[in-house]
Amino acid sequence: MSQVSSCELCAGDGGDVLWRHPQFRVVLVDEADYPGFCRVIWNGHVKEMTDLAPAERTLLANAVWVVEAAQREVMQPEKVNLATLGNMTPHVHWHVIPRFLDDRHFPSPVWAEPRRAADAASIATRRALLPQLLEAIRRQLDAAGLTA
Amino acid sequence: MSQVSSCELCAGDGGDVLWRHPQFRVVLVDEADYPGFCRVIWNGHVKEMTDLAPAERTLLANAVWVVEAAQREVMQPEKVNLATLGNMTPHVHWHVIPRFLDDRHFPSPVWAEPRRAADAASIATRRALLPQLLEAIRRQLDAAGLTA
Repeated sequence: MSQVSSCELCAGDGGDVLWRHPQFRVVLVDEADYPGFCRVIWNGHVKEMTDLAPAERTLLANAVWVVEAAQREVMQPEKVNLATLGNMTPHVHWHVIPRFLDDRHFPSPVWAEPRRAADAASIATRRALLPQLLEAIRRQLDAAGLTA
Repeated sequence: MSQVSSCELCAGDGGDVLWRHPQFRVVLVDEADYPGFCRVIWNGHVKEMTDLAPAERTLLANAVWVVEAAQREVMQPEKVNLATLGNMTPHVHWHVIPRFLDDRHFPSPVWAEPRRAADAASIATRRALLPQLLEAIRRQLDAAGLTA
């Protein structure tokens, strides 16, 4: 598995690791305004989805769908946003972001200018769901055969 | 196939259609600063990837990977950005965006504040590649068996 020492996703986990598969990991991102924001990170240093073999792409995408499903089950977001950008860190990683009508940017992408202040009570309610979210992610990845 | 009359991706194609498959379409987006920006749009009105059956998710994702591969073949972008957001239009569609060091937002996402003016000569050079890009998208979708 190729590693690049200057890459932050080779040098570190990139978040609080919820699940380690031999080829990818799922991490919880430390974004105060977005409890439940996860990333699904390929372990090897690969730049684009099309640098992966077809079966690897499907494996990684299946993990992304599982995280989305777990977020929906536990958090009932208005929408889930999925993205792999990598302009700053060209190591394949997916953002899986539960979005809510009252979040800082809705309906804009989280990378746009904020539209409002985060609602502290909503954030606290969502943060309280994190243990259930972690349980759901693990249970659904296991059920999907994406076993650690 | 469910349709919602108030949805712009049910009411219209959402761009210049390059490819029609019974279950999805590929369109070229009219974004002056981003020649080659494509969307891959599910034909039915479905909100989230996990509202699709597993085989449908894989079908749609495979089309996204093909468009990325065609953009890389023809345009040699610095990076390709993939995203399905749908906060404003909750009908599954993927943004497939070739990114360049000199584009308006690089390395930020295209939804962030611009960092510079677009370079007219670069844009013109990229725009001139569009016929080749359309040919590559069609050839590669056909080769992948994602036949119209």
